[in-house]
Amino acid sequence: MIRRLAIVGLGILGGSVAKAARAESLAREIVGIGRNASRLKPALDEGAVDAVSTDLREGVAGADMIVLATPVATLEGQMPTVWEAADPQALITDVGSTKAAIARAAEELCAARPLDFVGSHPMAGSNLSGFAVSRADLFRGATIILTPTDRTSPDAVKRVTEFWEAAGGRVVTMDPATHDRAVAAISHLPHLVADALVDAVVRMDPQFLDVAARGFRDTTRIADSSPAVWREIFEENRDALAEAVAAFRAALGDLERVLRSGDRARIESELERIRKIRADLG
Amino acid sequence: MIRRLAIVGLGILGGSVAKAARAESLAREIVGIGRNASRLKPALDEGAVDAVSTDLREGVAGADMIVLATPVATLEGQMPTVWEAADPQALITDVGSTKAAIARAAEELCAARPLDFVGSHPMAGSNLSGFAVSRADLFRGATIILTPTDRTSPDAVKRVTEFWEAAGGRVVTMDPATHDRAVAAISHLPHLVADALVDAVVRMDPQFLDVAARGFRDTTRIADSSPAVWREIFEENRDALAEAVAAFRAALGDLERVLRSGDRARIESELERIRKIRADLG
Repeated sequence: MIRRLAIVGLGILGGSVAKAARAESLAREIVGIGRNASRLKPALDEGAVDAVSTDLREGVAGADMIVLATPVATLEGQMPTVWEAADPQALITDVGSTKAAIARAAEELCAARPLDFVGSHPMAGSNLSGFAVSRADLFRGATIILTPTDRTSPDAVKRVTEFWEAAGGRVVTMDPATHDRAVAAISHLPHLVADALVDAVVRMDPQFLDVAARGFRDTTRIADSSPAVWREIFEENRDALAEAVAAFRAALGDLERVLRSGDRARIESELERIRKIRADLG
Repeated sequence: MIRRLAIVGLGILGGSVAKAARAESLAREIVGIGRNASRLKPALDEGAVDAVSTDLREGVAGADMIVLATPVATLEGQMPTVWEAADPQALITDVGSTKAAIARAAEELCAARPLDFVGSHPMAGSNLSGFAVSRADLFRGATIILTPTDRTSPDAVKRVTEFWEAAGGRVVTMDPATHDRAVAAISHLPHLVADALVDAVVRMDPQFLDVAARGFRDTTRIADSSPAVWREIFEENRDALAEAVAAFRAALGDLERVLRSGDRARIESELERIRKIRADLG
């Protein structure tokens, strides 16, 4: 059991970590840290956290587990302070959606002051954001990608794994660079493509949106997400996203060529190959 | 009230037309027509239809309303027989997902034998197909696009509108060519893009699919659809789809350029512009 859990940032992810930890009795005390006291108040009022702090240093001091849940760029700026103020035994993780830069920053900080750090990425995002939409069951059934490096202690991986599993998650591990390529492919690329789909319809005729059915709404739902959050994600994961966009362009071009060939058997076998892959995802 | 409703093709759409007509008492008698008697049997057993026929000519004869619900290419081949066998007063519609070619075929047939025809496209598809997944409420809340031309009688439009509204649909009208561009933009393009997204992930690393979250599954759900149905749709709507793919490529290219600019305010305002359009869709 965690004695004191410090959560930096109480948005949808940080808030859900607090609520899940509370619901599953994973921590004796939960401290919420944020820059704006009025935005921490709902978490305190609801009992999701026991205490709040607008001082990062003070907030993480004395915690045996620290979850960094601010947007990735903010988080990188906070890490030096966290490394200074954290207890020597503290176990640190984060919930950032890109991992290579954070892993690099952590390794540099650990060179000066070794602390137990394992990056986490709960694949439980939503197009919604903010504490108001956080839920104790957000991680139930969700895939949580841990990104240990060869310098991460196996014990730290074990303890972070146990934490997420207790919150209902399914933990897998990848190295940080592979993680960033994976999320570029299955999350950041689909987001960019959804944006382009919406814009393509507007370019043809905005009135066409009036007849958009469920299929279009499903396909483009993620385009209704926080621009600030996604601007940062696109920026952080620039290289892997460029690789994914190139793979997508190649796939789209090949599909068009197959369609243009007029070879019905070949078209159907190509559509069937892709259908089967998608069907297997459930 | 319809005296005899003949439905050609009892898949998800034709089956749902039968069930909706039954549930809302829109027709005294419902006849289901298909090539394969064993595939018509479930509709008869369930009471969705009163009679079945594997003979198109015999099946549509005596009907005052005929709904053509076979795949588009099949349907075009059936139209001459329908025009020969139908009663002079019959009102004919179809549920095909492309409309220009059908409208053209109907006008040619009407030049020889004038019958009341109005094209319909219920935007109530699904990635599933077949009578087994048809439902009486499939059209409830769905947009139904009617595609009258300047030769269509207003009375025919009124009667087909009343039919779909009684089945729970929301009817809008467009000319056939505009319809085909609209569905290329909001349905056929998203499908092709979903296919390319799935394939792009496979090209990068098929194992990345193991960590695909809800967002990816939503975005690519339509890729799990009948290859035969979609091969036909892509083929039928080739020109409008090419226009939509071009608009999409331009939108994606512009988004990439904005991202590469590194101008954060501009990136966020572009993402916000698109977010707002998508949010307004609900």
